[in-house]
Amino acid sequence: MTTLVISALDIGGSKLAITLANPDGPLIRLVQATRKSGMPDAIARQSLELIAHACRLKNIAFSAVRSLGISSCGPFEYSEGLLGITPPNLCGGLAQNKDLPNDWTFIPLESVLREHFTTIHIDNDCVAALRGERCFGAAHDEPNSIYATWSTGIGFGLCVDGHLLQGKSGNAGHAGHMLLSDVSTALCGCGNVGDLEGLVGGRNLGLHIGQGLDTLFSAAKSGDQAALKTVREAARWFGRGLYNLIVTLDTQCVLVGGSVWRENEELLAPLVEAEIFGRFPALTSGVKLQSAQLGDMVTDVGALVAVMPQTWIADWRTRKPWQSLQTKLVE
Amino acid sequence: MTTLVISALDIGGSKLAITLANPDGPLIRLVQATRKSGMPDAIARQSLELIAHACRLKNIAFSAVRSLGISSCGPFEYSEGLLGITPPNLCGGLAQNKDLPNDWTFIPLESVLREHFTTIHIDNDCVAALRGERCFGAAHDEPNSIYATWSTGIGFGLCVDGHLLQGKSGNAGHAGHMLLSDVSTALCGCGNVGDLEGLVGGRNLGLHIGQGLDTLFSAAKSGDQAALKTVREAARWFGRGLYNLIVTLDTQCVLVGGSVWRENEELLAPLVEAEIFGRFPALTSGVKLQSAQLGDMVTDVGALVAVMPQTWIADWRTRKPWQSLQTKLVE
Repeated sequence: MTTLVISALDIGGSKLAITLANPDGPLIRLVQATRKSGMPDAIARQSLELIAHACRLKNIAFSAVRSLGISSCGPFEYSEGLLGITPPNLCGGLAQNKDLPNDWTFIPLESVLREHFTTIHIDNDCVAALRGERCFGAAHDEPNSIYATWSTGIGFGLCVDGHLLQGKSGNAGHAGHMLLSDVSTALCGCGNVGDLEGLVGGRNLGLHIGQGLDTLFSAAKSGDQAALKTVREAARWFGRGLYNLIVTLDTQCVLVGGSVWRENEELLAPLVEAEIFGRFPALTSGVKLQSAQLGDMVTDVGALVAVMPQTWIADWRTRKPWQSLQTKLVE
Repeated sequence: MTTLVISALDIGGSKLAITLANPDGPLIRLVQATRKSGMPDAIARQSLELIAHACRLKNIAFSAVRSLGISSCGPFEYSEGLLGITPPNLCGGLAQNKDLPNDWTFIPLESVLREHFTTIHIDNDCVAALRGERCFGAAHDEPNSIYATWSTGIGFGLCVDGHLLQGKSGNAGHAGHMLLSDVSTALCGCGNVGDLEGLVGGRNLGLHIGQGLDTLFSAAKSGDQAALKTVREAARWFGRGLYNLIVTLDTQCVLVGGSVWRENEELLAPLVEAEIFGRFPALTSGVKLQSAQLGDMVTDVGALVAVMPQTWIADWRTRKPWQSLQTKLVE
């Protein structure tokens, strides 16, 4: 009897990651720079090649791998009923990005990947992260939970009444683009002025203050008052965004991940909490704010969970096999 | 064979409405001022009495009515696992309201009503409204839809992927309390400064501008520039709130109801749309903004839908029997 092998694909603006797994755990994870030239289907083709390459390395028949869980940057769009993506930082044909070596306006995923896979599940990366955390991480079985990433950008995965929200095109959770300030001039990549990502997304905040966030947070931690003021202000906006989501969704548990948060959690957590609690106690009291647990692998694990047989889960919960997985870079 | 009779209860800050219905349609609707003195269970007891009274008027055995759909103002809270409400305008024991003739801090619903009914479904009033509109109104079978009420307050019912959002205590949709302005001094009843309801909820806006909204909108419609400026500003905030929800939930269709909207729809709709469309086209393009269709009966119909046999629906869709229902006031 052949052992079932499933696959996961994580599409980011700079790197692509693929993972194979069997009941014992993840077998291999390959990472390669995201292709940005050629035809619009270049990224889907690259994904197929990487998975086939991983199969060869592990002596698995590529034809036997029929399930693929995808975690991808968005936004998503349907073209002729099949899902693809239109991220401004990958699509050179969109007005915002004249520098990219392509003229793509739509990157097909489903139409290409269905050629090979019989089961495909596609999640926004933050939805995949929440799927992973709910199964194996910090939000165990919590039906009303949010995953928030504070990184280069700001994104969310939302779960209400045990249901992971997708929306009309799989774009639920783009609340990084909610408008928060009516006086700030902070510009977001989406064109908004004063939205959450424009105010405190890592890239925008760095541009705004004219220094890297590492420098900012180091200065704040060593007591520099100007840096502390900037950090306090940023944490207040992030907390305000979370408060808005909590009253919108009546959330129980908020998990935060992403590089900005992970590296500065002790400084940020009390500041973010101060902006949430005390307001509207019927909605906020008892809400838990926690750090995500799955770290760098959170979206990959989430993508695997989407196509994983239920029967694998109990054993993985006990052994946490993703923790020992090594990543290989592919040129 | 006895004909099945179901009941609905709509609890508002000033009035209580109960409706009985059989397969042919609603049979009777009674409205009475909401009781605000006595024991905390006064409102639940009043509801039982009103339903029993309606049964007597229609020669129906009260004991035969076993299903109750409830639409209620919130916020909701669980006490010993059973749902009740804690509205600041009904609970005199909450800090904000020293004027009410009671010291209630929690109004039990489920614990009292379960004494009589075997099936009870409780929705936030805007969730009930969306349930009604999705079944019989303007959001027919639309899985990603929002009901927004612009009235004395601002509230929302949210549906994503065909699932009506409830949240940990049934309070999903309290997005009227999302913070939008960082400079406004507009105070909301919840204590927030600069949230959507504080900015443009009918009561707060009226207090802020020092005149009734009827006067304001009449002046705006007759071309008064100062009034038009206030209306434009208010519509912009309301549109901004809707935009924030659309990017959070990836919504397809927004239905707006409530007295402020209904009476000024032609003036408000283009202003609200201008604040939504053009931003983040991947999320907003193709979104439909429409007026709710069920009018004053929307929450009552929604509460009935929650406990209505599926087999009644097709016929009600054809005949719209709620349109001919007369309401009787009870002293």
